[in-house]
Parts: sequence; C-alpha cells; structure tokens
Amino acid sequence: MSTGAGHETGVRIEQDSLGSVAVPTSALWGIHTERAILNFPVSGIQLGSHRHLVRALAVVKKAAALTNTELGLIPADIGHAIVTACDTVAAGKVDEAFPVDVIQGGAGTSTNMNANEVIANLALQSLGHPRGSYDVIDPIGHVNKCQSTNDVYPTALRLALVFALEGLLERLALLSAAFAERGNAFAAIPKVGRTQLQDAVPMTLGQEFTAFAVTLEEDQRRLREAAALLRECSLGATAIGTGITADPRYVERVIDQLAAVSGVPLTRAHDFVEATWDTGAFMTFSGALKRTAIKLSKICSDLRLLSSGPQTGLAEIRLPPRQAGSSIMPGKVNPVIPEVINQIAFYVAGADVTVTMAADNGQLQLNAFEPVIAHALLQSMGWLANGCDILRELCVTGIEANEPLLRSRSQASTAQVTALVPYLGYSAAAGLAHRAEVSGQDVLELAIIEGLMPHGQLKTLANAGNDNLSGEPACQ
Amino acid sequence: MSTGAGHETGVRIEQDSLGSVAVPTSALWGIHTERAILNFPVSGIQLGSHRHLVRALAVVKKAAALTNTELGLIPADIGHAIVTACDTVAAGKVDEAFPVDVIQGGAGTSTNMNANEVIANLALQSLGHPRGSYDVIDPIGHVNKCQSTNDVYPTALRLALVFALEGLLERLALLSAAFAERGNAFAAIPKVGRTQLQDAVPMTLGQEFTAFAVTLEEDQRRLREAAALLRECSLGATAIGTGITADPRYVERVIDQLAAVSGVPLTRAHDFVEATWDTGAFMTFSGALKRTAIKLSKICSDLRLLSSGPQTGLAEIRLPPRQAGSSIMPGKVNPVIPEVINQIAFYVAGADVTVTMAADNGQLQLNAFEPVIAHALLQSMGWLANGCDILRELCVTGIEANEPLLRSRSQASTAQVTALVPYLGYSAAAGLAHRAEVSGQDVLELAIIEGLMPHGQLKTLANAGNDNLSGEPACQ
Amino acid sequence: MSTGAGHETGVRIEQDSLGSVAVPTSALWGIHTERAILNFPVSGIQLGSHRHLVRALAVVKKAAALTNTELGLIPADIGHAIVTACDTVAAGKVDEAFPVDVIQGGAGTSTNMNANEVIANLALQSLGHPRGSYDVIDPIGHVNKCQSTNDVYPTALRLALVFALEGLLERLALLSAAFAERGNAFAAIPKVGRTQLQDAVPMTLGQEFTAFAVTLEEDQRRLREAAALLRECSLGATAIGTGITADPRYVERVIDQLAAVSGVPLTRAHDFVEATWDTGAFMTFSGALKRTAIKLSKICSDLRLLSSGPQTGLAEIRLPPRQAGSSIMPGKVNPVIPEVINQIAFYVAGADVTVTMAADNGQLQLNAFEPVIAHALLQSMGWLANGCDILRELCVTGIEANEPLLRSRSQASTAQVTALVPYLGYSAAAGLAHRAEVSGQDVLELAIIEGLMPHGQLKTLANAGNDNLSGEPACQ
Amino acid sequence: MSTGAGHETGVRIEQDSLGSVAVPTSALWGIHTERAILNFPVSGIQLGSHRHLVRALAVVKKAAALTNTELGLIPADIGHAIVTACDTVAAGKVDEAFPVDVIQGGAGTSTNMNANEVIANLALQSLGHPRGSYDVIDPIGHVNKCQSTNDVYPTALRLALVFALEGLLERLALLSAAFAERGNAFAAIPKVGRTQLQDAVPMTLGQEFTAFAVTLEEDQRRLREAAALLRECSLGATAIGTGITADPRYVERVIDQLAAVSGVPLTRAHDFVEATWDTGAFMTFSGALKRTAIKLSKICSDLRLLSSGPQTGLAEIRLPPRQAGSSIMPGKVNPVIPEVINQIAFYVAGADVTVTMAADNGQLQLNAFEPVIAHALLQSMGWLANGCDILRELCVTGIEANEPLLRSRSQASTAQVTALVPYLGYSAAAGLAHRAEVSGQDVLELAIIEGLMPHGQLKTLANAGNDNLSGEPACQ
Repeated sequence: MSTGAGHETGVRIEQDSLGSVAVPTSALWGIHTERAILNFPVSGIQLGSHRHLVRALAVVKKAAALTNTELGLIPADIGHAIVTACDTVAAGKVDEAFPVDVIQGGAGTSTNMNANEVIANLALQSLGHPRGSYDVIDPIGHVNKCQSTNDVYPTALRLALVFALEGLLERLALLSAAFAERGNAFAAIPKVGRTQLQDAVPMTLGQEFTAFAVTLEEDQRRLREAAALLRECSLGATAIGTGITADPRYVERVIDQLAAVSGVPLTRAHDFVEATWDTGAFMTFSGALKRTAIKLSKICSDLRLLSSGPQTGLAEIRLPPRQAGSSIMPGKVNPVIPEVINQIAFYVAGADVTVTMAADNGQLQLNAFEPVIAHALLQSMGWLANGCDILRELCVTGIEANEPLLRSRSQASTAQVTALVPYLGYSAAAGLAHRAEVSGQDVLELAIIEGLMPHGQLKTLANAGNDNLSGEPACQ
Repeated sequence: MSTGAGHETGVRIEQDSLGSVAVPTSALWGIHTERAILNFPVSGIQLGSHRHLVRALAVVKKAAALTNTELGLIPADIGHAIVTACDTVAAGKVDEAFPVDVIQGGAGTSTNMNANEVIANLALQSLGHPRGSYDVIDPIGHVNKCQSTNDVYPTALRLALVFALEGLLERLALLSAAFAERGNAFAAIPKVGRTQLQDAVPMTLGQEFTAFAVTLEEDQRRLREAAALLRECSLGATAIGTGITADPRYVERVIDQLAAVSGVPLTRAHDFVEATWDTGAFMTFSGALKRTAIKLSKICSDLRLLSSGPQTGLAEIRLPPRQAGSSIMPGKVNPVIPEVINQIAFYVAGADVTVTMAADNGQLQLNAFEPVIAHALLQSMGWLANGCDILRELCVTGIEANEPLLRSRSQASTAQVTALVPYLGYSAAAGLAHRAEVSGQDVLELAIIEGLMPHGQLKTLANAGNDNLSGEPACQ
Repeated sequence: MSTGAGHETGVRIEQDSLGSVAVPTSALWGIHTERAILNFPVSGIQLGSHRHLVRALAVVKKAAALTNTELGLIPADIGHAIVTACDTVAAGKVDEAFPVDVIQGGAGTSTNMNANEVIANLALQSLGHPRGSYDVIDPIGHVNKCQSTNDVYPTALRLALVFALEGLLERLALLSAAFAERGNAFAAIPKVGRTQLQDAVPMTLGQEFTAFAVTLEEDQRRLREAAALLRECSLGATAIGTGITADPRYVERVIDQLAAVSGVPLTRAHDFVEATWDTGAFMTFSGALKRTAIKLSKICSDLRLLSSGPQTGLAEIRLPPRQAGSSIMPGKVNPVIPEVINQIAFYVAGADVTVTMAADNGQLQLNAFEPVIAHALLQSMGWLANGCDILRELCVTGIEANEPLLRSRSQASTAQVTALVPYLGYSAAAGLAHRAEVSGQDVLELAIIEGLMPHGQLKTLANAGNDNLSGEPACQ
Repeated sequence: MSTGAGHETGVRIEQDSLGSVAVPTSALWGIHTERAILNFPVSGIQLGSHRHLVRALAVVKKAAALTNTELGLIPADIGHAIVTACDTVAAGKVDEAFPVDVIQGGAGTSTNMNANEVIANLALQSLGHPRGSYDVIDPIGHVNKCQSTNDVYPTALRLALVFALEGLLERLALLSAAFAERGNAFAAIPKVGRTQLQDAVPMTLGQEFTAFAVTLEEDQRRLREAAALLRECSLGATAIGTGITADPRYVERVIDQLAAVSGVPLTRAHDFVEATWDTGAFMTFSGALKRTAIKLSKICSDLRLLSSGPQTGLAEIRLPPRQAGSSIMPGKVNPVIPEVINQIAFYVAGADVTVTMAADNGQLQLNAFEPVIAHALLQSMGWLANGCDILRELCVTGIEANEPLLRSRSQASTAQVTALVPYLGYSAAAGLAHRAEVSGQDVLELAIIEGLMPHGQLKTLANAGNDNLSGEPACQ
C-alpha cells in the first residue's frame, strides 16, 4: 500500500476498505489508528498512558507470532521481525505511538489495530523497509494472523490487569506492614474502644492499628483470588468463540505460548463462545478493587477521626504534618493524606458502577464496551497503588500516639464498667456507671469505695479488655 | 365471559386471547391479574401497598371515564358506574384487590389491567351484575377505553409521586422547623467550628443547627422543582405516542379532566412520542430524593459526631436516649435514630442507581422497566418520610447542648487566633498560636501579655467570628 | 421484673435502664423489642420476614447456650430450656414474634434483643413461668451470656446468608440446566452470530444457549467462593473483639459448637478486633450477587432481542406467551418474564451501592450499618432466587427456535465470507462480501461463480464456524 | 522570603510554617504548590488541564483584588499588578503553572494556594521583582486577602461549571438540531413502532428522530435549571461561613464584583455557614449531567438497534461508516460512534456515585472532598461535550433511512390491526391479527376480504397512527 503523493508533504497515504487517509510519515501507526484518532477525541487520555495494557498487547502479539511462525503460517523472517518489534513495544520504548483515546467504540478494534500497525511498521523498519510497506508485512495478514480483536483485546486486558496487580499488591503489602509496625509500637498503649462513636470498652491502640494491617492483608488475598479468574483467557476464540479463521493447531498452542512468553500461568476458558462476551471476571475484579478501596477509605476516616483536634477532638494520634493547612488559619494542620485516599476510594466505587453498566449492556456474542471497563479498572489500580504509597510514606510511618491523653482517659473511663458485668450483673454495673459519670469519679475506685468488690480482683480486671482471651476468667 | 362451571368450586373461569384461567369467585380482579400473580412471584410486596399509586390509577381511570362518557364513547350508566368504582378504589377501600407484585414485567400492563378489572367488577357489582360479566362492562372495552398501559401507567406514576410528595414535604418542613427551633435555642452558645475535623474558628452551636434547617428548606424547594416535571403527562398518547385508538376529542380533553379530578395542575407533554419512552422526570426526581437523603445522612453523621463520648468524644450535644444501647455495656446509649437515617440514605442512593439502570435500558418506543422505577421511588419516599418523623420526634426536639463544655473549650481554643490575623499578619499569628498551644495558655490572653495588641480591641474580636458580618471591621 | 398493674389491661410492664414500657401480655418479646418497634417504624418490613436471619439467630443462641451450659456458666435446666426455645425459633414457628423493622439503628442490638427476649419467654413458658419473669431466665444474663450484639449479629448474618445461598444455588443450577437442555436441543440449528449487533460469522443456536448455561455455572462457583468468606466468624469477640465479659473457655469452644449445631463448617476470624468492624465479606458477597444478577440481565436482554418481532425483529426464537401483552394491541405478546429479571438485576446492582456506602461509613471498632447491609443482601438473594424459578419455569423451558428463518438467513448471509479470509486474503474477501451484498447473491455461491475457490473446499468451510476447533485447517 | 543559596543551582528556597522547600527558579508557583506536588502524585492529571477551573480561580482572585483595592485593604499598585496577573491566568497563558494533581486532599487548599502563588509571582514579575519576593507581594497577605480556600474554592468550582456548561449546551443544541433535521428528512417514512421490542403500531421514522431532538432539548433546559443553583455562591464566607478575617465591606461587595468581572449573574447564598459545607448544588448538577448522559445512551442504544444487520437485524437505518469494523471480518462496519457515547454515559453515571459518596462524607463545617467532585464533574462535562460533537459530526448528520424496507414492512405488518380495534372491538381484531400472521396476508386486506369493514374507511385508517391527533376520529 505504501506511501504515495503525500510523501513530500510529510504524510503517507494509506488505504483500507473505506478509502484512503493521510498518515504522518513519521508515525509508526497506520490508517486504522489514524481514523481512530479522528473518531474518538473524547478524553484526551491516550492508550499509551496505560503502560500495562500496551505491554500486554505486545506480549499477546508476540505469542501469536511465535505460534504462527512455528506452524509455518507466516514466514520465519517476518515472524522474527514481528517478535522483535513486540519486544520493543513491550519494553515501553514506543508508548507515544499509541495515540488512540482510551475511550473508544468498536470493542477495542482500534486498540488492536494500533498494536498491529505499530508492530508491522517496527518490523518493516528492522528489515529495512519504509513504513507502510504492508505488501511486505501486513498488520492484518501477518501481525493479526489467526486473531481477532475479540480474543486479543480481552486477553490483553486480563494480562494487563495481572501485570498492574503486581505493583498494587507490593504497595499494599508495604502499607499493611507499616500499619503492623505502628501496631507493634503502640501495643502497650491503652485506650477506650468505641462502638457507634460512643465510649465502649478498653483496648490498646496497638490492637486498633494491627487491625488495619490485618484487613489490608486480607484484601491482598482477595485481590489475588479475583486475579485468578483473569488468568483464564480465550486467545484463539477469534470473532465469536468459534475460532473462525484460526488454524486449529494455533488455537491449541497459543495460550501455552502466551503463558511462556508472559510468565503468567494462563489457562484456557472452558467455553470460548461464552468467554467472548463474558465480562464476569472484570466485574469480580472491579468488586475486589472496590473492596480494597473502601477498606482504605474506612481506615483513613478513622485516622482523621482519631487525629481530630488538637483541642476539641479525639486527639488520640498525631499525623505527620504535610503542608500548612489553611490559607487563613495559622497553625492549622489538616489530614490531607487520608483525605486524598478517601477520594480515591469514591472514584473507585464510582468506577465499579461504570463497569457494572458496561457489563450489563453487552449484547449477544460480544460486549462492545470493554474499553471503558479497561480504563476504569486500570485507572482505579493506578490511583490505588499511588494512594498506598502516599498513605504509607507521607502519613502512616510518621503517626504518633498521644500517649498521656490516652492513658489518662483510659483510667477515667466508665467504659471499664463492662468488665465488671460478669461480677456485679448488668443492672448493678449500669447503676455504678451512672453514679461514676455523674460524680466524675473513677468507676473502679467507686466500686471499691462502695464495697462492690475487693481491690485485688480489680487489678486483674483492669487489663481484662486486652488479654482476657488468654487469661483470667471474665465471664462466670 | 362470565362465570362458568367453576362457580360451585369457588372459582369463576375467565378467558383472554391466550386461553382461560380460574379466578377466585370472591376476587375483584380478573384473568389478567390472576396471570400476573402467577407470573411475578418476586418480592411478595403487593401493588396495594403502594397506596399512592393505587389512588393515582383510580384517579386516571376516573378522568378517562368522565371524558369517555361526556363524548358518548361509553354509555352514561356504565360511565357513571365506573366513576363510582374509581372513587371506591381511590379512597383505599379495596387495596387488597391489588395483589400483583410491584416487581413485574410488561411495562406496567399487569398493574393497568388489575385496575381495569377491579374497577369493572366494582362497577358491575354496583349495577347488580355478578363479577366477570364483562359482556356488560368490559375491563378493556369500557374501563380502558381510549387508553393504553403506556400512557396510563406513567401518568399514574407521576401522579402517585406528586401525591406522595405532599406528605414528604410536610414532614421535611416539620423537621427543618425542629432544627430551626434548636438553632434558636442554641443561638448564644459559642463553640469551636471545625474544618477537616480540625479545630478552626469560633462559631455558635445555633449557627450549626440553623444551617441544618436551612439546608433542608432548600431541599424542599428542590423537590418541588423536580416535581414540576412530574406534572407533565402523556395521557392520550396511548401505545407509542401517536394516540392510536383514542378519539382525538378525548385526547384533547382528558388531561384537563385529570387535572380537575386530581386537583393537580397537570400539563400536556410537548411531544407524545418522546414522552412515551422518556424517563427523564423520574431520573430528576430520583436525584432530588437522593440529594435530600444525602443531606439527612450528612446531618445525622454530624449529630453522631457531636454527641460522641460521653467521655472521650466531642460530647458537645446530648441526644435523647431511645433505648438501652448495648446488650453488654451498661449505661451505654447509642445514637440509634441518626443511624437509621444514614441507612435510609444509603438505600435511597442505591435506588437511584436502580433507576439509572432502568432508564438506560429503555428501548425504542417504550421503557419496559418503569415498574422497578415506580417501586424504587415510592419506597424511597416512604422511608424518607418515616425517617423525617422519627428523626424529629425521637431525636432532634430533645437534643440538648453541653453548654459548660462548649464554653470552656471555646475560651481555651487557639482557634481564636485566626481573628487576629488581620491585625498581626499570618506569620506572627501562627507563632502566637504555636506558643499558646505549647504553654497551654489562652491565645488572646497571651496576645495581651506579649503586648501584641491592646485589651480593648481584643474584646471586640472575641465575638468577631459570630457577628462580624454585620458589625466591626475585622480585616484591615 | 415480671408483669405489674398492666396485667388486667392486656399489657405487662417491663423495665430497663431507661425506665419502663408496657408490652402486650401476649407478646413473646419484651421491653427492648417494644422500644425498637416504636423507634424504627421505617419500612414496615418485619425482621420475621427474613426467615434465614431468624433461623440463624436461633442457631447462634443455641450454640452459645450449649457452650454456657457445658461450662456451667448457666444452670443446666435453664440452658436446656433455652436450647429448646432456640429450636422452636429456628423451626420458624414464631416468626411473627420478630416485629422489629429490618431497617434499624443500633448495629443490630434490637435484633439481638428481640431474639434474646423471645427465647427467654419461650424458655420461661416451657418451665411454666409467665412471660416477663426475667428473674428466672434473663434475656441478657442468660440468653445473651458471654455474647454481645457485635459478635452475635454479624455471625448470624453470615450464617443466614449461607443458609439462603443453598436455595439460590439450587435454583441457579436448575436454571443453568434448563439453558443447557435448550442448548442441546438447538445444537444443530445454524445461525449468524453477531458482534456489536452487526452480522458477524456463523455459529449455532445451541452454542448461544449453551453459553448461557456455562456462564451461570461459573457464577455458582463464584458465589460459593464468596460464601467461603462468610464462614469465617467472630463469635466470642463480644463488644469490640477483645472478648470482654466472655469466659475464655467459652470463646475457645463456641465457634466449634456453632459449626456442629448449624452444620456449616465455620472457622474463626484471625483477628477479632478487625473482624468486629470489618464488612469485607459482605462487600465481596454483594459483588458476587451483583455479578450473577448482571449475567442474568445480559441473558434476558439477549432473549428479548432474539425474540423481537414477530415481523420486524430478529425473530430467531419464540418465548412462551405468559399473558396477553397489551391492553390495546390485539395479539401482541411481550417478553414479560425476561423483563422482570432485568429489573431484579437493576435492584441488586443498586443494593450493592447501598452495601458499599454502608461499609464505607463504618467507624472505629464497629460498623453500625449492618442492618441495611443485611436487608439489602437477603432481599437481593430472595428476589434472585425467585427470578431464577420464574425464568426457568415460565420462560426458558418453553423457548422454541424459529428454525426455518435461522437456516435461510444463515445460508444467505455474507457473514460466511470470514471463513474465506484464510484462503482469499482479507481484501479479496472484503470485495466479495461487498459484491454479494449489492447483488443479493449467496457469498459462497458467488465465490464459486467468480472462480475464487473450488466447490469441494467450500463444502468443508460451510460448517467451519461450528467445528473448526476440532477439524479442518481454516487458517493457512 | 525570596531566593537564597539555591539560586545558582536552579532553585530558590521558600519557607512556610512547616519549614523550607526548594522550588525551581523558573517556577511561577511557590512552596505550597511544591509541597502539594510531592503530597499528591495520584492521577497525573494536572489542575491546569481543567481550563475552566483555572480561569474561574483567576476571575475570583481578580474580583477579590479589585474589591480589596477599592476598599484600600491592599495598596493600589499591588492590587493593579494582581489584577493584571489574574487576567493572564484567566486567558490560559500559564496553565502549565498549575501542576497540582486534580485529586488532592485539603479541601482545595493546594489549588487555592497554587493560584495565589502564581498570581503573586506574575504580579511581582510585572513590577520588576524576582519570583519569591513575597515581602513585596504576598500570596496570602495580598492575593488571598479576605479570602479562605473554603469560600474561594467552591465559588471557583461553581463558576467553572457555569463556564463549562456554555460549551456543553452549545454542542447539545447542535446535536438536537441535527436530530431534528433528520426527523424532518424522515417525516414521510412509515415504520412499525415497537414496544418491549415487539412490533406494536405504525409511526414514522421522522417521529422517532424528532423525539430524540425533543428529549435533548428538554435536557438543555434541565441543565440550565441545575446551573441556576451554581450561581449562588459564598465568596466572603471565609473559613466556615462566619466571614472571619474578612472586612465586612468586602463581604458586602465582592460577589457583585465577581458577577461584574465574570459576566455571570451570581447571587449570594442565604446562609453562609450552610453554604460552606453544602454540596447540594453539585449533587443536583451531577444528576442533571447523568440524566443527559443516560438520554444520549438510550438514543445511541436505539441507533445501534435500528442499524443492526445488515441482513439479520432491524436494518431500518444506516449509520455512516467510520472505520473498517473488524480485523478479521471483511466488510463489517460497526456502530463505533454510538458505542463510544454509551461508554461516556457509563462513566458519567459512575461519576455521579463518586459525587454522592463525596457529598455524604462531608463533616461538620466543611466538605473536604470537593476536589474529587470537581474532577468528576469537569471530566464528565468535557467527555459529554466531546461526545456530542462526535455523535453529531461523525454519525447523526450522515444517517440514512432504509426506506424500501421500512415501507414494505410497514404494509405487511399486523401492527396495523390496532387501528381497527375501535371499529372491530379488541377480540375480533385479535383474531384477525392471528389469522393474518398465520396466513402471511396483509391485515388490512384480510379485513376487507373477510368483509369486516369497507375499503374507504380503511384508507383513512392506514395513516391513523401518524396523524389521528389532528384529524380523523379513531376511537368511537
């Protein structure tokens, strides 16, 4: 097809079944990409910014090329050039050659063709041909051989999510470790636990922070489980799952090849027809991301509550100051890092609704709305990963306890009365709590003064909230 | 069609184009309703529980019957009997005759037919005919004359929402009045205002509660505006908006008739074809309900925060105790009323997503999913209305201020330093705040001790936060 | 506490720390329940309507009573009476004694106390004592022994969801079997597959229906996986996870006891403090329900599309008629069953947002909003289970193929040209498709006429779409 | 504060209450912005990309500077320099000087300070001072005079949305005009209208397209109404609505000044305390955007349905081909433009949930989560505006009717039987429809053949669906 009259003016003319279009001579992409640029000026966010997706596309194309070459479906020299080109793309060296908008129609056809065209032109270049010499290496005939957008795109998306998850899990692990470290540091600091924002019973600040670590560790497991579904793919299914146009031997081998090339233990979807339209794995994964986001949001809301003050709030902990808090209130320092995490979570929760609606609107043999699913999930993951780093580095590791306040409050609290219930009964304990609050006296001291129980027993009870799981009988 | 062999066994046999079905002899409904009972055993929530919708259906049927009678399209005696039957239904005397599940397929056809059948049988009864004598009065031929489900159902739903809104607005008005009353009662009580949960600048507790009243008053206006769209209806549009099967004179008159009968100032939709599939007004109304719900949720979260304690929380206000708070913690009283309002709000926000998805899935000339929209909106309104009553009666009117604490905190707060910024500059004020917090001294006293400003000026400033909008220059 | 002067007038007077309240003499519940009735008139949906939750509460109470009795923490006769009472409640014999509104504040305290009171009064009755004789058997002191709402309620909710899931899975299995059966019946019927609603490539109607079965089978696995998290519980954690007031031996044994009593293989949460506020398992489970709902919605949207017509639609299948479709359009039959499923799905998707917001709003040591989570999940499950039955019985099993139409369309379709791409190349095949469409000729015939390929080869290709995974090389 | 030792190394050192930070010498921003860059590396989307927000910030700062200058609160030369700097920022000449991430904590403080610093440095530059000479012109003391982030940020956001809306409304108007034009062009083309995807009654293709225009015109009105709420602002409220630190004369004048400078008829919020935390207007506006998005989605789903085929679908219209539809299916052309609009709508619906959660999480005197609201709304508006252009230019204006098919289907359709109901009665008409469908005969012809009605009457009826609103009696 090659370049025509446009050559001199900095463009080459390419053709497809709809006609011809001028493509910048310097562009690694071709006519399908160029049309997509014109068709989808929506978000201004280019495909190339989704690094993991571009890498995944290249890895899929590489696996296909290797399989096609092995089977003799494409000539060895062309196959080799394509593989090398895929490596270049996978390595992130030409991300700017993926200018198509992430929000696009066509079920990802433009994304697939952008990859096909860039890889074809890189391969041509390596063989010394000018860009656009598709009679030598054809984006469809060679690069897309035995493939369809409808198996390539969802496979690449699954792989991209698996790639992106590695980083997210690492950062979640660092974050939960940071909470665990604070939990250890605060292990001996008593405080009043609260339910429904009301003073409840004694605990330690360490228990509170350890629970943050525990919950984030659980979410790492949940994300891994959700990701297991992503490893089931349909490469070889082509257009609607029947494998039409694909050599059966290719279909048989390509997923193993992809597993080898990507290093990801992929399995083959049980039913290719179902797998071609199914977006269940994306929904499950989106739900797992939302769950993690909401956990982070809950934790950050707690951090903001616990650090409220300095004079009229709970003031139990101090977050490291990150910026002067106000343009008019001198000395005010705000919990800006937890606040940004809450907002990330609200975005991720919204994105889950986007994914849900996209999934619901799939029709017949394909879901045409996977591009918005891709963007929603990849952006959510990126924001969450960044959020984990920020939260850990700029906040959690620097959190300090307001130990004197916590200790003095802990001793004065009527919350300790619950520990007396097994000894006094609920009604007598309730009366004691009421008298202590009215008089401002310490509950345990008042219990002794009133002769309700001996001093020695009380000493044991004072720590009951924290260690009665492993020690003293508290319920008799 | 009448009753047949089934008579003796407690059923009558009715027929439609699909065949025949046994209907209980005692039932006011007929075959279409009976089929719907069998087809839609989903939620167990019967149509009759949506009182406003049943009333609205009856009112629509009455307006149609009056118009049809006037135009001679149905005989006067039949028309009169139908009108009387509609009055019976509208008055809520036969709600149990509407057993169809609220969650139903068919775009409301079963609801419309349930109304047609009950009205026909009531009319037959008033004329001395046995139930099912549809050769005398036919549910479709007479009661549904010149109508289609596709204009009756959305018109009735709009009317039902307008009816239901009356009660919700009344209760919102009572609630905002209760907040306003508390705002007045707390007008002179100073407190430290908080932004981002950090101590900020002085205000009064009255300002805080007055703002709750103000925001709910605004939402009443927003709901009224949203309801204005509901008053635009498409009765006369029949199946798809072209008015097919309806006498043009009927089309011309019926909406005015409905306005007269219902007492609601209805207008005619500009384009009946569009109006037949459009669910925009429901989306707007759902959004207004969600806005109100979120306002209530925010207020209730604030009430829970402000009443947190009693010893380790903000403890600025006390909510009236409604129940013993805990099965194990004596003396604990929880903010159970605000908590239930938060949960109502979460439900309403979820229902808005339900409405959104239903609206999005409309196809071509009709939205078949209006029944779930109807249920979502009517249930949200009912819950919100109940929530307003509960919140007012069981919580707001009994809220008390912890005035001593608020006053002492207010005096000690470094938050007052902001008022000095215009006099000292931001940096000097920040330094003063820091020294005051470290030494535990009162900011304003320290300012005098340090000779930063004369005593007289300070007195003026002490109330600056509360009244400088109407008085002293604070920024010079 | 017993009955007082109110006895004669049909009420008994009970007391708690806030004062006294009249309870109907006939009521099995007591003062805490009575207060809750007054506090939460929100939805009108009574706790007793959530059968699985009532059963689960009783099972939890039974396990606790058995453990307490074993350890001698409550007298054996009282323990025995409580256990018997729990069995009565679990068996569904007193569901009407659970009148508290499902939407309630207090983190489930009212639900827990309703259970405690009903069980105490049933136990009293079995021992010959009048209701309200709490000096003999105390709802808190005996029935709630070593427990808190904060461990009982979430444990019961988890168990309730596990119970409810059994039924849902059974019905999903029946539904997927019905789709599989139709898939087999349609296995030999060719059709044109569609992507993006455009004619794509050949497939069979059987493949399409089999995919519906496959996708629902997958969702059964996903629901089971999500339910695994529900089996991790925190009974013994009491108020905030520290086990305060609970005998350590009780804490050690009660979950095993509960597993034995319920027949559900429960495990103990790793960190009780975290487990007390964590709602992650509910979010995951809600996500799994939503996924299933969206799958059903997608399938039903397809069924509606495929059955569109009869004259101007796709008309590939016929759904069994369930009701006369229109009040004015004779002969019209609508896809009312699939439509109701779509609406159930929209509700479930909305409920997931409700759950998300409730989870996000948890604070510190407890999530006070579990009641709305409970209602959202249990109602979603109930509606989905009913939906599965309706869809199967009233629709799927009666679906018929419009085989003549499918066959004739299949032969005439240019969609078959894709199968020629490996032989002709993409460009030549595109040209052929274009000429066939313009001339109205059969693509394959035209290929022969134009001499593009021999007849024998074509015959093989005709079925390529359906079986090339196991046979002829299609890509060379 | 100015530059220090870092000067030579390409940075200047700036200081705030937390310490000192190196800022690039070339940067127009200062220390607060620099800290924000380090604190919020979340999305990579810079504030400067929200052109309307940057412009609005500059306009707000200009109005404040003019008012402060007028009142003598800042020196005239400094005021003048600030005003000029604001004009530079408003004109979009330094957007790259707004590098702060759009997703940020601090309730917009970093955004406000970025504006303050850039404006201060531009003003310093115009007066011949080096960047960072804040002793001459101070970002807080001069540029932010009488302001707080808490009144500046929401005011600027409101203004930004008003600015952005202009463009969106223009593009919606062009789009609805394009639909109206197609509606006119198709006015005489008959078709079968569909309800619930089933053939219903006759209409014209013109009516269908006109309805698209009508619905989008309505949405323009709804957006304007929602925007009216945005014009109510709280500039002058400062930190929490009490106007602390602001000169009362400034408070009185600044909103009028802002109205004059911006050209937007702004009004003053009724209660500044409420207005400071209230996000109701953003919720309403988000709802209006969602409504428009869902309308566009519904229309695009219809366009995809109507253009389905070419051989096995509805095939009533043809969308202009925008790109080769498939990488493997020759000749396939997909509805890629409508598909991208659906996806935009799913994003906007998700963003509405984000806004809802952010609004719900506001606490006490401020909502700290306005930055994510800002991003969600501005991005939604941008995508919608682009979507309108794409849909109009690349799709709607080129839509063509498949007139022969529509006409032939229209004549053959049993849908016409509904028009006979008023003449024949429902049952007889249903029987006729059934016989016509079975025999394949034209309904109206069969009616004549069977002697059911005279030929003359039928001719009238043939167009009844389209024009009976203005002519022939159809219901008698």
